Amino acid sequence: MSDYVHILRSDTINPRVLIAKYEVRGAVTTRANDFEMQLLDAKKKGVPSGLPFEYVTYCNIGNPQKLKQKPLTFIRQVLSLMEYPELIEKAPQAFAPDAIARAKRLLDAGFLTGTYSFSKGHHVIRQDIADFIAARDGFPCDPDSIYITDGASAAVRHMLSLMVRSDKKIGVMTPTPQYPLYASLLALQNGVQVGYPLNEETGWALVPAELDRAYEEATAQGVECRALVIINPNNPTGNILSVECMQEIIRFCIKRRVVLLADEVYQENVYEDGTKFVSFRKVAHDMGDDVFKRIEIASFHSVSKGFLGECGHRGGYVQLDNFLPEVQAQLYKMTSIALCSNTVGQVVMDCMVNPPKPGDASYELYQKERNDIIQSLKRRAFKLSAAINSLEGFTCAKPSGAMYLFPSVVLPPKVIEAAKAAEMPPDTFYALKLLEGTGICVVPGSGFGQREGTYHFRITFLPPEDQIDTVVESIKKFHAEFIAQYK
Amino acid sequence: MSDYVHILRSDTINPRVLIAKYEVRGAVTTRANDFEMQLLDAKKKGVPSGLPFEYVTYCNIGNPQKLKQKPLTFIRQVLSLMEYPELIEKAPQAFAPDAIARAKRLLDAGFLTGTYSFSKGHHVIRQDIADFIAARDGFPCDPDSIYITDGASAAVRHMLSLMVRSDKKIGVMTPTPQYPLYASLLALQNGVQVGYPLNEETGWALVPAELDRAYEEATAQGVECRALVIINPNNPTGNILSVECMQEIIRFCIKRRVVLLADEVYQENVYEDGTKFVSFRKVAHDMGDDVFKRIEIASFHSVSKGFLGECGHRGGYVQLDNFLPEVQAQLYKMTSIALCSNTVGQVVMDCMVNPPKPGDASYELYQKERNDIIQSLKRRAFKLSAAINSLEGFTCAKPSGAMYLFPSVVLPPKVIEAAKAAEMPPDTFYALKLLEGTGICVVPGSGFGQREGTYHFRITFLPPEDQIDTVVESIKKFHAEFIAQYK
Repeated sequence: MSDYVHILRSDTINPRVLIAKYEVRGAVTTRANDFEMQLLDAKKKGVPSGLPFEYVTYCNIGNPQKLKQKPLTFIRQVLSLMEYPELIEKAPQAFAPDAIARAKRLLDAGFLTGTYSFSKGHHVIRQDIADFIAARDGFPCDPDSIYITDGASAAVRHMLSLMVRSDKKIGVMTPTPQYPLYASLLALQNGVQVGYPLNEETGWALVPAELDRAYEEATAQGVECRALVIINPNNPTGNILSVECMQEIIRFCIKRRVVLLADEVYQENVYEDGTKFVSFRKVAHDMGDDVFKRIEIASFHSVSKGFLGECGHRGGYVQLDNFLPEVQAQLYKMTSIALCSNTVGQVVMDCMVNPPKPGDASYELYQKERNDIIQSLKRRAFKLSAAINSLEGFTCAKPSGAMYLFPSVVLPPKVIEAAKAAEMPPDTFYALKLLEGTGICVVPGSGFGQREGTYHFRITFLPPEDQIDTVVESIKKFHAEFIAQYK
Repeated sequence: MSDYVHILRSDTINPRVLIAKYEVRGAVTTRANDFEMQLLDAKKKGVPSGLPFEYVTYCNIGNPQKLKQKPLTFIRQVLSLMEYPELIEKAPQAFAPDAIARAKRLLDAGFLTGTYSFSKGHHVIRQDIADFIAARDGFPCDPDSIYITDGASAAVRHMLSLMVRSDKKIGVMTPTPQYPLYASLLALQNGVQVGYPLNEETGWALVPAELDRAYEEATAQGVECRALVIINPNNPTGNILSVECMQEIIRFCIKRRVVLLADEVYQENVYEDGTKFVSFRKVAHDMGDDVFKRIEIASFHSVSKGFLGECGHRGGYVQLDNFLPEVQAQLYKMTSIALCSNTVGQVVMDCMVNPPKPGDASYELYQKERNDIIQSLKRRAFKLSAAINSLEGFTCAKPSGAMYLFPSVVLPPKVIEAAKAAEMPPDTFYALKLLEGTGICVVPGSGFGQREGTYHFRITFLPPEDQIDTVVESIKKFHAEFIAQYK
């Protein structure tokens, strides 16, 4: 009916939803999806697609298996056995004995993929996670402090819901640039995002004095800062914190009374020689009980990153240190409202934290697959960053960790004008043109936050090694033509 | 440090989290989980548990496979192949040809369980869902109107987030009793729950006049009712709506300008002869375009219920009719913030909406497994309700659909007093005592909402057939002793 006035419209729905932004899957990615469908359709019909590229290269998101990274054999053997345990009898020869043993262990503990687990995740899996954390950090971890979730994103959502309240201006400090999950959830939940800048000139290092400055500015505006988000290794910059810097951050949290939200999902993605990941809970613990017992730390981890890249399985957890039982009870309730995280993600998590050990049948293959992926990621990171750095107008920090580069690009005044005319930020304009010209999908820096007048984009270095040269050549060719056009 | 004052405490965290309640996994279930751990521990150590029962019978939640319902073979074969496609070569004899064909079809369409899918779910699976809906209702369904989510719960959460806003008193009408997901999400999101009573005396029928009464009362209090939740078949009561009643509900939505949230997750769980499920979109469509084009309908479905009971896989969807593109774009963004629903849940959904067809290798087995489950559920529903009805003080409506009974129980004054002394609602007191005496876990009616002075509990009829007698005998024995104690 043409005269029907809809109940739900932009002006009647929740205004917080309208202001939330999530550029990782924003306008550029939506366009990329349309192109992918167009290519598929043309292929099916056997006609030309009309596009100047044959496939979309999704460099917008850390989605390794979409870019041909192979899953680890052990993990997939365990998953298939858990889904169809009859295979243990029907086709034992198709599986490594330790994969069968792992499936039996979980089945014997009452873990069935078809049932809701306990709200926080199955107790056997939480115990394995606790053992992993204890071994990593060198001191114990209570399995009851762990909440398994549908990816780390859901854990972040729960934690922010718990802390932010609409009757007060509650601030959560986030880096600039930041992973847009934080900004979008804070927008949805009425929290105040308090940005602290990372220093691009020193490879996006965190400058502790900036934390104080941002905190004081927010406080002067009546914002009560309650939490500090640290992403380490950093997304999108790849920076890895030194232990000294982490100690300063911990002292800041104690002095200012803010909860530390440690986004440590890239803990296995470390590429720089001599650098290694250390968790915040270990650093805090090593500073002594006087420090450790005075800081509330929530640490996030995921099966989507590292060398697994099991993004679609949506496995994640948050582990809490020094939280009051009354607060943990509320978090438990929030996980209960969603009933439980998906069970398959829990199994993947179990394999990640408790991989094959020396002597196990799958050990050597697992190690080989793992090392091949990590080494290849490292080669691709260095190759792509060197290539991008060699392009005129581009500057790209050394990639120490994570899965992304966040280069800056100098855009001529005519581009800024053209973007204004097209009603979009200049970096979005650039990213869209890059996509239209090459099929390469990146995320505009404005989605992460950047210093006024600077332009960046986030690009994963996940394309297969034999495609990295093509990606580089495509960007180079596109950029030269683009700059010539808008000179 | 004994002098450390925590940042996050009951008095500092989000007060909306504190008031949200979710009794399906509340105090009684937490106690049941503790008992289960105690039993496991005793078994491991080979010592007596000290409890008067050997296992916990989880009748609190519709979790069929926890109560020994077997998963459907076809579905699990497809899942194991999707997780470990090498099995197609390594062990083809272990799989039905159509299970292999299904896995190949999804793989060929670019569906990999390890990758994030499109935010709304993979396009092939959304197309299969659209075809299923079109065939069910007899008129077309647009795959772009479908959003696949981690269980239907996440879809409900997205829809409520979209509609409720903290700057206005937005009401969402829910039945009393209601599935507590709605109340808890409305509490979290600052929505106003506007209850409309179902009529226990007529088997919990929905009385359309009560909708008007509740709407007017809420309006008089300055609440703007924006949506109406209808659960059909109903959870917890098992009632199934007549088409005439559905027509009246649709006319109410149009007259009052409220969005219809149709919770249709139990659409396969129909036990009464001569009764069948009809979707709201079909009824609205059959009323003519004048009606259909004037109502915004969101319909929820899930892989957790029906005859699949694949709860742990967290597969669900919401399908929208007559929503504005600008609103759909916002829903898309919300699904993007969580990246995508878990892919395995999407595969289960695909198998559910597109099961083996006549002539397919798995067809007969699938039909047999399906019919055995549905028939058995029907027998268990009637057996348990008849048995409960025969107990003194109990009244239980005829179970037409869904997975639960919601009997009322008369509690003597001394029980009310004892509950008051224990600082809990009388029905929670009763449910806890039942659990402690028998190991049977049910949900107190106060978690769903009930008329003042009446007491109920929700119990699934999912225990295996050979346990139903034991459950009945246990309840009977417990109840007699309990009443004698508090006479």
